[in-house]
Amino acid sequence: MDQPRANEIRHILRGQDFDLELIEELFKRIDTLDEILRDPIKLAELQNNGRGRQVFTVFYEPSTRTRMSFEAAANNLGFAVVGTENAREFSSAAKGETIEDTIRVMSGYYPAAIVMRHHEDGAATRAAAASNVPIINAGDGRGQHPTQALLDLYTLHRELGRTKDLTVLVGGDLANGRTARSLVYLLSKFNNIEFIFVAPESLKMSDDIKLHLDERGIKYTETEDLENLLPEADVVYWTRVQKERLATGVNYEQVKKQYELSKNHLALMKKDAIIMHPLPRINEIQIEVDEDPRAAYFRQAAYGLPVRMALYEWVTHLL
Amino acid sequence: MDQPRANEIRHILRGQDFDLELIEELFKRIDTLDEILRDPIKLAELQNNGRGRQVFTVFYEPSTRTRMSFEAAANNLGFAVVGTENAREFSSAAKGETIEDTIRVMSGYYPAAIVMRHHEDGAATRAAAASNVPIINAGDGRGQHPTQALLDLYTLHRELGRTKDLTVLVGGDLANGRTARSLVYLLSKFNNIEFIFVAPESLKMSDDIKLHLDERGIKYTETEDLENLLPEADVVYWTRVQKERLATGVNYEQVKKQYELSKNHLALMKKDAIIMHPLPRINEIQIEVDEDPRAAYFRQAAYGLPVRMALYEWVTHLL
Amino acid sequence: MDQPRANEIRHILRGQDFDLELIEELFKRIDTLDEILRDPIKLAELQNNGRGRQVFTVFYEPSTRTRMSFEAAANNLGFAVVGTENAREFSSAAKGETIEDTIRVMSGYYPAAIVMRHHEDGAATRAAAASNVPIINAGDGRGQHPTQALLDLYTLHRELGRTKDLTVLVGGDLANGRTARSLVYLLSKFNNIEFIFVAPESLKMSDDIKLHLDERGIKYTETEDLENLLPEADVVYWTRVQKERLATGVNYEQVKKQYELSKNHLALMKKDAIIMHPLPRINEIQIEVDEDPRAAYFRQAAYGLPVRMALYEWVTHLL
Repeated sequence: MDQPRANEIRHILRGQDFDLELIEELFKRIDTLDEILRDPIKLAELQNNGRGRQVFTVFYEPSTRTRMSFEAAANNLGFAVVGTENAREFSSAAKGETIEDTIRVMSGYYPAAIVMRHHEDGAATRAAAASNVPIINAGDGRGQHPTQALLDLYTLHRELGRTKDLTVLVGGDLANGRTARSLVYLLSKFNNIEFIFVAPESLKMSDDIKLHLDERGIKYTETEDLENLLPEADVVYWTRVQKERLATGVNYEQVKKQYELSKNHLALMKKDAIIMHPLPRINEIQIEVDEDPRAAYFRQAAYGLPVRMALYEWVTHLL
Repeated sequence: MDQPRANEIRHILRGQDFDLELIEELFKRIDTLDEILRDPIKLAELQNNGRGRQVFTVFYEPSTRTRMSFEAAANNLGFAVVGTENAREFSSAAKGETIEDTIRVMSGYYPAAIVMRHHEDGAATRAAAASNVPIINAGDGRGQHPTQALLDLYTLHRELGRTKDLTVLVGGDLANGRTARSLVYLLSKFNNIEFIFVAPESLKMSDDIKLHLDERGIKYTETEDLENLLPEADVVYWTRVQKERLATGVNYEQVKKQYELSKNHLALMKKDAIIMHPLPRINEIQIEVDEDPRAAYFRQAAYGLPVRMALYEWVTHLL
Repeated sequence: MDQPRANEIRHILRGQDFDLELIEELFKRIDTLDEILRDPIKLAELQNNGRGRQVFTVFYEPSTRTRMSFEAAANNLGFAVVGTENAREFSSAAKGETIEDTIRVMSGYYPAAIVMRHHEDGAATRAAAASNVPIINAGDGRGQHPTQALLDLYTLHRELGRTKDLTVLVGGDLANGRTARSLVYLLSKFNNIEFIFVAPESLKMSDDIKLHLDERGIKYTETEDLENLLPEADVVYWTRVQKERLATGVNYEQVKKQYELSKNHLALMKKDAIIMHPLPRINEIQIEVDEDPRAAYFRQAAYGLPVRMALYEWVTHLL
């Protein structure tokens, strides 16, 4: 993000706001935090430093895993947590209160940060404008999910040792997949990245992203066929194709079959490639794939913990 | 409240139970706590003193803001929190268990206090009768919401420096507004208070309150016109008129228009008056009013935090 | 449970897995913890030892009391808590994710234990197979609720000083009552236990349990009449008969009347017998019974706190 002044409130709103310098700083800290997590004595020290702070988790739509990851991360830092699972239904929002008013009231209780999940695009930015404390966007509508984007990027750093010089195959529902889109955007900041987009015709990567890549001179290939270019990928970022999002007339069962990663695909992949997935996965990666060391998606999910710890540290000026 | 004996359980059930001596003691402590909240070192000390205690928040109907305020207050004191957002639907209550049984079980887990929100009038008093630990009423039906009443009163203390010698305009839905009714009741204990009640005919202040004021010889004026007496008010306590509560045949749009506080009204008000509102506000105070320093409602909400901290301290004999 | 090796993950999945040696060790520790709970200084010490750990409470069906008991127990040990009240509706499970995947992700966040409540029989065992951290079964379907079984057994230890040489009357809905069935199973491990089963014909104790007792040579009597054998019981474990579980054609009102414990029954009971109930109770024990010192059910519920504390200590190798 742009260099913040000393007293500036640090929000986390959009994936593209992370600049290269900040990413590097965060990755160093995440590496360290991941070690601290395995060392009870250092963890206790970390928590003692964090005591006194608290975080609010305000989820207008439920997302149990994301919320629990944020709350566990806060606990690991010694922060207390106050939250709501279903603010949309339960809170003053149901009575018609604006996001701005809700956030003004909540930020009046002095939390170290407010983690917000919302069903509307741009909600986090509106919240930030009304807030005296940092807003962390935990997903707003189909817009942004910046902490997921960062943990995806961190997965490359940890698993492959680099976030450049990579051929990245991104597959599944590219038209609607928020995480896939965000990762492509973030990766476009790094040198020598090449993309392979694998999607059914009606779920192709949208033009705004392709235009962005063209402007930056970044090479990408589009195909409906998974197997053809699979051998070239260093990273396979796979997502689910949902029936209700396919164009009418398209045979879902056939597409589903075609977009299911199985052991057969493993044979085609590079030996040191990795498979990522934002989870939950249903059938789009078969369970038999899990045993393969290249299946990185559960490790990827686990990185969410130190990633969110580092982001809390950054917004609270502990970092 | 009546002088408690050393071992007596201190409940917080009704606004009118606060006596003047206790109010004075609490206000002193709330002033101090509000300073501590801005001083990380003193806050850490406070929390270390509170460690080991825990609070249960048992909400039979959701009220996210009130719950979060109580939970944040507990965390600030170093108390752990265990809670439920929707006990009515989720808990044994759904199977037909009485409040008394539920409270007996919960008080058997040794919480420092049970904060209870309930949809039935008098639920808190029933709970207190069955409990071995302090019950804090966080609103029961249309009956009582004593911590809101105290924070409203505290707002006068903080914003105006006094809770006496005041002309208080209370407006909106006075027939159903729990907070407006409670504030009038509490203020009637102080010297030289005068009330102006502004409400549509069908939502006038109810007779029980007016009788109470008559008995105490407290002056009040009733009007449907906001602007007429606005220049005399030191405090404007404003609430929402809900369509479904108006008498049939009354034109809601017209009433709504008439009971919307706007910039025009600011021009009529005293320079050192304040505008209060229990929030959430929808349209009954226009957003343009927020910028005026006399708009005290967001500060009022924020006082809820130290107010609830002081009340926890009082019920747990820390105060 | 079978002797765990040093590095083995200790799960709590089924009541019958507790072996006599472990039960004895746990009961000693629960006695101690119950004393510590009443001593703020020792409790603070205990919590300092536990700091740094956190527990996840993942409830696929709501059970407010059980969840709060587990969360309060965790807080008492200094563990942080992250939880969800309604994972079935809110979480990735709703999108079709398997229990195994959910648990793999959650156990990747390093909790000290995952407490899981699930609507399907055997869910806890499936979770344990996928988990890198201890799973504590907080009830899975109509299968098991081992921590309730242990607290029931502990109640005998505390209230009567023994878990052997007892005549135990178990009454109500014995066909469906998970807690009644589990207690019978656990008690069958101890010497000189005799059972009296009191149930309507269509809700009799099922054959698997009776076969188990026969194999162990344990005496039991079956009757529909409560009063007849009541004078012989050292323990009356009473449960609710639900209308919808009676055979069609059976008069519910008559059965209900017949299975309501009242003051009249107290007169028939031994002077040092105890009445237990898993709670919530509706009408099946009349409120007038509560005052009798033999009414142990609220004390029984309260034992759940130190029982769950001891079980956390055991699974985390603190015990």
